[in-house]
Amino acid sequence: MKKMIHLLLLLPILALAQTGDDAATIKKISDEILRNGKAYDLLYQLTKQVGGRLAGSPQFAKAVQWGKTALEQNGADKVFLQECMVPHWVRGGQDKAIIIQIDKKKASRALDVLALGNSLGNGTVTAEVLAVADFAELEKRKDEVKGKIVYYNYGFDPTNVMPFMSYGQAGIYRRSGPSRAAKYGAVGVMIRSLTESVANDPHTGAMAYMDSFPKIPAVALGPRDADEVWALSKKSNFDVSMTTNGHFLPDTIGHNVIGELKGTEFPDQYITIGGHLDSWDVNEGASDDGTGIVHTIEIMRALQAIGYKPKHTLRFVLFANEENGLRGGTKYAEEAKAKGEKHIFALESDAGGFTPRGFSVAASKEQLAKMQGWLPLLKPYGTEEISQGGGGADVSPLARSGTPVSELSPDPQRYFDLHHARSDVFEKVNKRELLLGAVNMAALIYLVDKYGL
Amino acid sequence: MKKMIHLLLLLPILALAQTGDDAATIKKISDEILRNGKAYDLLYQLTKQVGGRLAGSPQFAKAVQWGKTALEQNGADKVFLQECMVPHWVRGGQDKAIIIQIDKKKASRALDVLALGNSLGNGTVTAEVLAVADFAELEKRKDEVKGKIVYYNYGFDPTNVMPFMSYGQAGIYRRSGPSRAAKYGAVGVMIRSLTESVANDPHTGAMAYMDSFPKIPAVALGPRDADEVWALSKKSNFDVSMTTNGHFLPDTIGHNVIGELKGTEFPDQYITIGGHLDSWDVNEGASDDGTGIVHTIEIMRALQAIGYKPKHTLRFVLFANEENGLRGGTKYAEEAKAKGEKHIFALESDAGGFTPRGFSVAASKEQLAKMQGWLPLLKPYGTEEISQGGGGADVSPLARSGTPVSELSPDPQRYFDLHHARSDVFEKVNKRELLLGAVNMAALIYLVDKYGL
Repeated sequence: MKKMIHLLLLLPILALAQTGDDAATIKKISDEILRNGKAYDLLYQLTKQVGGRLAGSPQFAKAVQWGKTALEQNGADKVFLQECMVPHWVRGGQDKAIIIQIDKKKASRALDVLALGNSLGNGTVTAEVLAVADFAELEKRKDEVKGKIVYYNYGFDPTNVMPFMSYGQAGIYRRSGPSRAAKYGAVGVMIRSLTESVANDPHTGAMAYMDSFPKIPAVALGPRDADEVWALSKKSNFDVSMTTNGHFLPDTIGHNVIGELKGTEFPDQYITIGGHLDSWDVNEGASDDGTGIVHTIEIMRALQAIGYKPKHTLRFVLFANEENGLRGGTKYAEEAKAKGEKHIFALESDAGGFTPRGFSVAASKEQLAKMQGWLPLLKPYGTEEISQGGGGADVSPLARSGTPVSELSPDPQRYFDLHHARSDVFEKVNKRELLLGAVNMAALIYLVDKYGL
Repeated sequence: MKKMIHLLLLLPILALAQTGDDAATIKKISDEILRNGKAYDLLYQLTKQVGGRLAGSPQFAKAVQWGKTALEQNGADKVFLQECMVPHWVRGGQDKAIIIQIDKKKASRALDVLALGNSLGNGTVTAEVLAVADFAELEKRKDEVKGKIVYYNYGFDPTNVMPFMSYGQAGIYRRSGPSRAAKYGAVGVMIRSLTESVANDPHTGAMAYMDSFPKIPAVALGPRDADEVWALSKKSNFDVSMTTNGHFLPDTIGHNVIGELKGTEFPDQYITIGGHLDSWDVNEGASDDGTGIVHTIEIMRALQAIGYKPKHTLRFVLFANEENGLRGGTKYAEEAKAKGEKHIFALESDAGGFTPRGFSVAASKEQLAKMQGWLPLLKPYGTEEISQGGGGADVSPLARSGTPVSELSPDPQRYFDLHHARSDVFEKVNKRELLLGAVNMAALIYLVDKYGL
């Protein structure tokens, strides 16, 4: 009895000591990353030496080799490539659009545009513009659509504090706008770029045609040009001459690039950390998703540098094809299933390298509660919230097989200034913000590895 | 009895309705600012049309006129200038420093430097450099100091998650480094700039001489040049030739610019919202503190635009001289005291226009607790923490008279990339982040005005 009392008295002390250990280990991880972090230099290499790297492109193949080397040089026990077929869309030249005022019968103004990813174009289409606020107006005016280029003015709602909410609301115009206009006979589509940026850069991004309607060309307009088109549409009729040449080459071989730190207790149980290696073709893919790639490598480097021996096998995955196909993430989950691998957790970084604010999670209530119990350990590094949400695109196929997944939530305010635009370059990433993302992710991985979910 | 029960039953409903009202009013404020906010355009005017505006300079006088007009045009009931004497330090030309390798007897490398604010220079000083890590090393090597230029290599500790902590630790080298070296006979001082920026821009900022020692010239080195000087000092002896011409002109007249929204219930009780109008001479003063100035004007504009009638008189103050004298804030508090004004709260914005994270407060425990009770109302807009700390320099003289004060805490990671450097320009400010700062401040002001402290 006496002994039992002693043990009971010891329990809170043991718990405290354990928390103290965890705090000390996390501090060690943080110090290692903030002092010796290589993420920023790696990002420089990826953005400046490899550059834009759409799946299927020669630059993507170069990125695969770069990623393999980076994982090897930063402490992986093992690095391997996982082959998967990827789509191979090419822009086919410079996208153009010119306003032609009908009364003047002359080109009056060039617009800054980018063809939407996956859209098809075959040279120049010239037609009168029908500008609509949204799908509701399109439906109302469907009889006017035939033979026209439809412009959707649907933009971000500035009153949403969270820009991802605006992206959620407006994204459907990019993805489905072309086919919804083609249904009524439109010959081309222009959308307002999905951004609130003050710059006029157009923002591309994936669209998908519905097979039942003609596959008409589609471009995104720079936001200032979108303002002008909308204003002009209230005053007069005008044509736009739109030139795009997007097309698909045959699917080609791509690769997920995977580095491992072998588990010491449960080598056959996996924790995945990843981002996507592909980017759009028009920029350096710095924040989308170079930052996720270098987060991934940095976490591996830091854990290895402090001598951490994971219980579970940690997989650091540079996914092949998030932007226009999700083939990398799909392949990874398929292989995991085929091999009967047990995946206990997957964490993605695909929302930029801005100051980390928390994690979004797709897991059971119990798993979420367990993670939220770690908040006091993570808060000193910036994590203020762990909340139910999504886990990111590339880990979503794993999530469908029941793996709890999560995504880093960095501060979201600047993301859509850069997202899919030419301005998504290395110079827009801040070194400390980037490193802090890796700190918070590494700390969470450490806790999941130690305590499970 | 029956009536009393009814009232009691109603109480929680009334409380809920009140919270609902507050949430609705704050949403209205937020929508107004995010939809129609002028802060970004005002910042463009201040940075591009007025520019750098050190107290005493012609540009500062121009800023005063700009501020007066901006307050008038954005809804102030009354605008007035509050005169105060301000110091008038001038840089006196381009600061220079050149490494001269003694063995080669020739200028080998120009360093990018800025004289520290308030430092005195009278042309060129050439002397051997004694590079020390910190004051401890200076003390150990005090016998070597005479006739030399002392270089302090003390920088930011990268492992501090909060850069303001690093600034607190390293700031003393800028403020007191020159006199502490002059004490032992140094003829000049160079410091590592107070930043972790990857760029080589030097960062100026105020220093103060101790009267008992010679007033020797002092410069800040660009961080990359600081690395080089430090590395070189480990390999060889070398001279530096330092040219600075800082000097003081006679104190001159400056002004706090004050706009008011008159209180409807307690017109003689004041709530102050402010930032500082002055900036260093070498940049546009966008983040330090143009953002605080336009936050201040924006809050007034938005409250007026939604038809809010404050109970207390709200004072929107563009302070005259934070950077190298604090004369504006001091004068404001002196006048308040002389007139027996009751100041119930003062809120400052002087930490940049980055995404708001919370508020730092200097108030009683009870006042802090009351403010923390409002967190659920503020959280949707980004405020995650209201914690005991400081209230900012310009409201600190008010705080000494017992007024509870607070300062907006924006995300701090990028602030010291820009702070007092040439890179503190308009283009580094993000419109949404800036507006969200005004939203959170306006919401807090609304709550303090409604419920008191």
